[in-house]
This record gives sequence, structure tokens and C-alpha cells, in this order.
Amino acid sequence: MPDWKNLDTLKSYETLKNLKGKVDIAKELSGPDAAARVQKYVVPMAADLSYSFAAKQVDDEVLQALGALAKEQQLLEKFEVLYNGERVNTGENRLVLHQLCRGQLGEDVVADGVNKRAFYKEQTSRCAAFAKRVHDGEIVNEQGEKFTMVCQIGIGGSDLGPRALYIALENWARANGRLKMEARFISNVDPDDASAVLMGLDLAHTMFIMVSKSGTTLETLTNGEFVMDALKKEGLDPAKHMIACTSETSPLAKSDAYLDAFFMDDYIGGRYSSSSVVGAAVLSLAFGGDVYQEILDGAAAEDRLAKNENLLENPDLLDALIGFYERSVEGYPATAVLPYSQALARFPAHLQQLDMESNGKSVNRFGEPLSYQTGPVIFGEPGTNGQHSFYQLLHQGTDIVPLQFIGFKNSQIGNDVVIEDSTSQQKLSANVVAQIMAFACGKKDDNANKNFAGGRPSSIIIGEKLTPAALGALLAHFENKVMFQGFIWNVNSFDQEGVQLGKTLAKKVLSGSMDGALKAYSELLEI
Amino acid sequence: MPDWKNLDTLKSYETLKNLKGKVDIAKELSGPDAAARVQKYVVPMAADLSYSFAAKQVDDEVLQALGALAKEQQLLEKFEVLYNGERVNTGENRLVLHQLCRGQLGEDVVADGVNKRAFYKEQTSRCAAFAKRVHDGEIVNEQGEKFTMVCQIGIGGSDLGPRALYIALENWARANGRLKMEARFISNVDPDDASAVLMGLDLAHTMFIMVSKSGTTLETLTNGEFVMDALKKEGLDPAKHMIACTSETSPLAKSDAYLDAFFMDDYIGGRYSSSSVVGAAVLSLAFGGDVYQEILDGAAAEDRLAKNENLLENPDLLDALIGFYERSVEGYPATAVLPYSQALARFPAHLQQLDMESNGKSVNRFGEPLSYQTGPVIFGEPGTNGQHSFYQLLHQGTDIVPLQFIGFKNSQIGNDVVIEDSTSQQKLSANVVAQIMAFACGKKDDNANKNFAGGRPSSIIIGEKLTPAALGALLAHFENKVMFQGFIWNVNSFDQEGVQLGKTLAKKVLSGSMDGALKAYSELLEI
Repeated sequence: MPDWKNLDTLKSYETLKNLKGKVDIAKELSGPDAAARVQKYVVPMAADLSYSFAAKQVDDEVLQALGALAKEQQLLEKFEVLYNGERVNTGENRLVLHQLCRGQLGEDVVADGVNKRAFYKEQTSRCAAFAKRVHDGEIVNEQGEKFTMVCQIGIGGSDLGPRALYIALENWARANGRLKMEARFISNVDPDDASAVLMGLDLAHTMFIMVSKSGTTLETLTNGEFVMDALKKEGLDPAKHMIACTSETSPLAKSDAYLDAFFMDDYIGGRYSSSSVVGAAVLSLAFGGDVYQEILDGAAAEDRLAKNENLLENPDLLDALIGFYERSVEGYPATAVLPYSQALARFPAHLQQLDMESNGKSVNRFGEPLSYQTGPVIFGEPGTNGQHSFYQLLHQGTDIVPLQFIGFKNSQIGNDVVIEDSTSQQKLSANVVAQIMAFACGKKDDNANKNFAGGRPSSIIIGEKLTPAALGALLAHFENKVMFQGFIWNVNSFDQEGVQLGKTLAKKVLSGSMDGALKAYSELLEI
Repeated sequence: MPDWKNLDTLKSYETLKNLKGKVDIAKELSGPDAAARVQKYVVPMAADLSYSFAAKQVDDEVLQALGALAKEQQLLEKFEVLYNGERVNTGENRLVLHQLCRGQLGEDVVADGVNKRAFYKEQTSRCAAFAKRVHDGEIVNEQGEKFTMVCQIGIGGSDLGPRALYIALENWARANGRLKMEARFISNVDPDDASAVLMGLDLAHTMFIMVSKSGTTLETLTNGEFVMDALKKEGLDPAKHMIACTSETSPLAKSDAYLDAFFMDDYIGGRYSSSSVVGAAVLSLAFGGDVYQEILDGAAAEDRLAKNENLLENPDLLDALIGFYERSVEGYPATAVLPYSQALARFPAHLQQLDMESNGKSVNRFGEPLSYQTGPVIFGEPGTNGQHSFYQLLHQGTDIVPLQFIGFKNSQIGNDVVIEDSTSQQKLSANVVAQIMAFACGKKDDNANKNFAGGRPSSIIIGEKLTPAALGALLAHFENKVMFQGFIWNVNSFDQEGVQLGKTLAKKVLSGSMDGALKAYSELLEI
């Protein structure tokens, strides 16, 4: 069994701290060996992706020290006990099984008397079969007409991941004749969210999916009622228009209000749930079960890489260690995720939840306070848009923000235009390459306002094309990265106690039992 | 004339540094005077908004010290010379006149032989008149049919601000019969962006707007050609489907390729250009010139407040000073903007550009290096969505992130549902109030994993409803806040030299004249 230890008890961490500031990337990437470095510091990922880290502040010595920390902190052993079914989610005393939704990395995991791999596979298949019956016109509306749209009602992990994945593939699917049903999403308890989405739907031909593991998420239940009201007003029968994705023990599981229900369990955290029915139902309805399976297969292939003991054959572990180095050795407080792909427009929002909700903790996995910093702030927007926006601060601001680029050799849709001798895709790729170098090397100028200090580290994940498999690999890469970083900091990346207090206080306000400042604020808002 | 001085030369800054950590908001908001504090620390804004700062780490002493800094740094005098037409944009030797697009705060500003207020008003009127002729069917397509959609082609400031404003009012307009034409936006040079938007357009009935002040923005020219190609392929005449928003001296200004052109000038920075034709054309086409004028009037009213010498009657200055205090005295590296309004979904992305591109600088306005930190990282998503995502880190992470909430008493559309005795709007408002208190006061728990340290500062802008006027006031509030903070740090908030190096290197790649690491990266991407 691995030994769960705080970061500041590790000898290898002391070694690493002495390497702070060792690597000058401006020098490394402008010297005679610069091209060789770029060619060397790139690691294959699944689904024809690769992870390039030549513009990160590492060299062979730092990498070796990071590898030593991975060993001392037993990162791979911890992954192993996780996928073999240990209760790694200590705060909630739960197994952590999202990888098992897409493949089996170790032993059979039997919990609550059930083989969990078989259970997850069965639920994925049920989603695919249900979707096929909808597409084939076997499941129809009151008028016997086909459903043409799907709308997911969920919040947090029941929204951000599936929404980001849908947006990532929507236009690829449309261009390739794979779009079976357009998808929409309702998440916010703001009534304007549901109202606006409903205005854009053809209600009579829309299938709604209620997504809540517990079946008690206030926003989702409220929006579910909102939608049911709207359906009834149109003379439609909600029970013929709604399905549920939930746990088998939840109030939604056996309700007559739903046409069918698909199941996850307590071992799938919300922000890790895109591989479960939370993603399977909506994405199978939108694109078909075969496309969803390609996503899962891409993710499973990436998961297998995360087992590799050789750091340079394990891009998830490597990315985790470099990110940890930037946070805990260099001391950078934030990280930007910058996909050069409009299709990944909402992927940074998913990663923001994944990372900040997992590792934004001040206690270790045993509930003991920590004296070092954990997860950074994560934010990002697609390039080239960001270049004309917040990149100014990234280039010339007073803080260094490490960067995580994502780029593809080919566009998804394949429609392009040549202007000034280059395609838009070439311009897009030229820009991301240019940015990497501009951030790393900067440029001296006698006019300080035009001077670029450089020394701003970045990595880039490079893909052939944003396909379902590549998307799955990306999803798994970041899940595994965050998991390894949680192991390094010795936090529990799978609970989220920080969301509870707000819920309790909101209930107080709604029940009218507040006083003091809470009451005064409520009066300001005229609640 | 005001004296432009670096922050670290100010006596009042020394005083403030001694007040670091003085105010314990957990104490202030839980003691017997807590309600009184909430009632006292709120300042009216324009358009029925107000700025509440009771959960910020200030008290009367800190406010007095901030007021002294405002005096010593001559913030209002600097604003005065700005709106009276001094060349405050030192880097580019330009006037800074975006406020003049919506009102006149001081003397007549005559530049290049023109009364600039008259010029901006004329251009706004021309946009409104053009829009009316389109709506009335006087300007029609080749078939004599009305245009029903509008699509803006622009990037950075020509995209984020107008897009955020459009999204903020789209559903309000739809619900109130004010939506004249649906708007879409193409920004990214990624060919998938233009392809995807074009797939969703009824090309024969779409009016396109090319937006580039210089008329040389690579992304925008490329996307313009992309669209022209698509129009020609459909047998349509681009010159009957496109207008331009640009400067009078740009190549776009007098091109036969456009039906008409509307003008801004060098005194309107991209990220400040929503009040110019960059916002006027698309928003007048979408909603009508009268709605756009309401936005301008709301902004103008907020601008007038920004002149007030009394800090407690000047919400823009007050917000700027508190934000500066958090960054330069408390040392917090990031700020989150959290609108409890789904309609403001893209407003944080606009503010991210506005703030980070304006104040993410390492040199002062004279081009001299600075030895203190300037603008913070800005990010955000709407609540309650964020509560189920990254709030975990905000509540229990190891860094403190100051928060800027925005909330409204009423929804935009007015469609709501009562569940468990409260409306969705009440739940939304109860949540934001609960979050303010949870962040400020925290909650002691013997289980450290359930413990909330509190002491996490926030403000909230409260409005009656997100109307065009309220939106204009919000826009101006943040523009003025960022401007005042630029004055405090003595940076030039109106240039963006940090975007140049990347452009130069991208051109190198596209021309094939790169070597070393740049070439090696280009090979990885197979450009």
C-alpha cells in the first residue's frame, strides 16, 4: 500500500526547490541546440496527439528530479490503488472509478456486490440503444413524430463537461453527416436561462434529460419543473419528453415522470462524469452511440499511458509534474488554457471546474491543514481570440502565468480559404507557434514599452484533427493530470466540501430565518 | 496640469501599506453592527444600480486613506484632462475619447479640425438611420427581400464587447418584441469558426459588418474574404451584403466592396469601442437605434458620476481604489467577476480584455520600468453555475481571490416558477447573498475539511433589472474603474504593445523565413 504523505515531508521536494529558476527558456530556445530541444521534448499521447514541453522551464536534471518526486510520492502506486478500487476519496469514503467507465486498467472492481466495469458498460450500452430507438423513430412524441432536439438539464459537472464535448464536436458532426439531434443545455437557476433556451426549442420534438446524481440538486430540480410547466402549457406530456441520468437510489430513478432512467453511482464525481451516462445520454442522442464510443476509446487509450513508469512515455504524469513545479517551486498563482480551436471554446470552462474544484483545497486527504499552496487559478479562451484580448498581460504584465496551448494540424470542417498565400488553418497554427516563441524568448527593445522580457513558459498539445477520439484523449489527459497533482499535494481531489456552506445559507435566506448582515443583504436584493 | 507619478513615490501609499490586513470582514459582518455596515457601505450608480462594498476589507480609516491617495495621485484631474482631450495615450500619442461617444463631460474637444462630439454623434445617428432603412425594407437584398440577420466580423475589442452586449440583451429583446435581427459573430482565424457560423446563417438574408479600425487586422480581413467567397458561391453579391466599421483613412473606408461605411477614429481604443460604431452598427441593426441610445445614455450617466469628488458618490473611483488596495496592498493576484445573470454570460470575457489588456503592463506611461505589480488576472462565469464549479477553490483554496458579484432584483424575461415556496429569481438572489456571507464570514468546523476560513472579500453591483440603460452603466463603470486604476499605477491603459511580437513572428512563419526553434515548432504543427 502506498504511503500518503504531505509534499513538504518529501526529500525530493527539497531537491527541486534548489532547482528553482534553473532553466532559462529564452536561452534554451534561442541557442544553437534550440531546434534539437523542440524535437526532443515531445511525448506521444493517445489518438495521434502529442505533448510538447520544450518551452517549459525544465531540462534533463529537473526532469530527473521530478521523476524522483513521482517515485518518492508513489504517484503510480496511488493511481494503481485508485483504479483497483481503493476508497481513495477519503472525505466521502468512496471509490473513484471514472476511468472504469471507459476501460479496465487493473483488477476487477466489485463494489456493492456488482462488477463495476460491467455496470458502467451496461449503462453506456443502454444509452446507445435508447438513442438508436429515438433516431430510428421507435421512441416518438405524442403525435408519433420523431424527436429532433435534445436538451440537458444539469449544473456543474452535469453541464460543463458534456456541454464542452458537445460544442467540440457539433460542427464536425454537422459537416460529416453525424449530427443526429441538436443539443441545448439549461443549467443556471436564473429563470432567464431556462426561458431563453426554451424560446429556441421546438418543444414538441425535444427530448429532455434531467441530470443529477443525488436527484436533489436544487437548480436542476427547479429547472426540471420549469420545463415540465412549459411542456404542459403546450399540451405535451412531460413523461413522454424526459429521461433521467441519476443514481439508482435517487428519487429520480424510479419516478413515473420519466420515460427512462440511466444510472451512475457514487464512485463517479460530477466533474469526472462525462464518461458516465452524464455524457453518454446526451452525446449518444446528439451524435449516435458509435461516436460516443470513439470518445471513450480515446480516453481509455490515454488512461493506459498514464500507467507508464517511464516519465517520457507518460504525458499525463509529465504534465502534472511540470504544472506542480510551476506552482510549488516557481510559485506561479494561475495557469491559462489556450486552445487554438474554436470548437474547444468551452473546454477551458470544463478544465476550470475539473482543476479548481479538485485541487483548490487547504487540507490534506486526512483533513489536516496544509502549510503549502495547492491548485492554481485556471482560466482561458480560444486563440487567436485571446491574442487580441488578455495576452497583453501574459506578455508584458508583472506576473508570470504559465500557459497550456492546444493546437491541431487540420481543421475539423475542412472548409478553408487562401489569402496572402496561406490558409486560415496555416495562419492559426503559425500564430500559436509564434506565441510560444514570443512568450519564451521575448525581444529586447530600447523602448521599454516595446520590450518583451520573455521567460514565460508554455506547453502545447498537438493533434492531427479534433476527432471524437482526440477529444476523449484530451479529456482523460487533464483528468489524469489533475489526479496526479492531487496525489503530489496529498489532497483529496474527489470531494468538494467548499460548496456546502453557500447552500446552507441560501436555504436560510429562502426560509426567511436569516438575521444580521445576511438579512441586510437580502433586503438590498429585495428577496 | 496633473503630475503623473509612480505609485511608489506617493506618501499616501506608504500610509495604506501600514493598513494592510486591518479590517477583519468576518468580524465586521458577524458583529452587532453588521446590518448597519451593509446598509451604510452602498453607493448609488446610474440606471438604478448600486455598488455595495460592505464585504470588502475596508473601514472608514481605510476609505479615508484611499481618498487621500486619490487626491495625491490626482485621479480626478487626470480624468478631467482625459475627457478634455489631452493626449493621455502617451505610447501612441493619442487622445482618449470613448466617453465622448456617449456624452460630453467637459470642454469641446476639437482634433484634426473636427468637433469630436459632433463627429461621434453623427456616426451613431448614421448607424441608427441605416438600421431603420434595413428594418423598414428600404435596404434589401438582390431579390428585394428584407435582411433578417446580422453578422459581425471582428476580433478582440471589435468582438468581445459588442458580443457581450448583444448576448446581454438578446432574450430581453426577444421577450419584449424588440429583436429586429438576430446577430452572430465571427472572430477567430480558425476556419472552423467562420464555417460553423456560416452553416447557421440564412446567407441570402444576412447583413455582414466588417469591423477593423485600421482595416488591416489579419483575422478580420481573412474572415471577410471567407464570407465573400461563401456569398459568391451562393450567387450573391458581397457588395450588397456587407458594411464596414473602420476609420476614415483605412482601406475599408472607401471600398466598393461595401454597401456603406461607418467611422471611428484613433481616439477610440478597441476594448473601449462598444460606444462607437463598433457597437452602434450591430446593436442598432439587432435592436434598433433607440435601444442602442438607451445603452449610451446609461453609460453617459455613469460617466458623470465618475467626476464626483466625494468618494462615496463616485462608485467607479471607489471600486477602482478598493481593487487597487486588494492588488497593491493585500497582494492578491487575481479577481473573479461573477454575474448572477445568465444574460451576462460573456460579460466577464469582455472585462477580462478590458482590464488585462489595459493594465497588464510593466512600464509606466513614460515607458520606464516599474518595480511594483500592476493589473491582476481577471476571470469569471455566471452564478449559480460557478458555485458548482470553481467556487471550491475560492472558498477553500490556499490563495484569496477577491470577488466582484453582479445581481439583479428582477429577471429580464419575467417568466418564472414557484418551487418550494420561492421563485427561481428568489433562489438566484438568495444564492448570491449567501455566497457573499459564506466568503466573508466562513464557518468554524472541527472537521478541517468542512471548515471555511472566511475573510474572502467581495463587492456586489445590484440592479433592478438588466435593461439597456443598466447595461450601459455597467459598461462605463468598468471602463472608468480600469482607467482610474491605470492612473493609480501610472501605466498607459490605452495602448497594447504586448500584442505586436506575436504578430511579427507569425508573419515570419507564414513567409517561411523562420529558423531554429521557431522552425522546429512549425514542423511539429506541419505548417
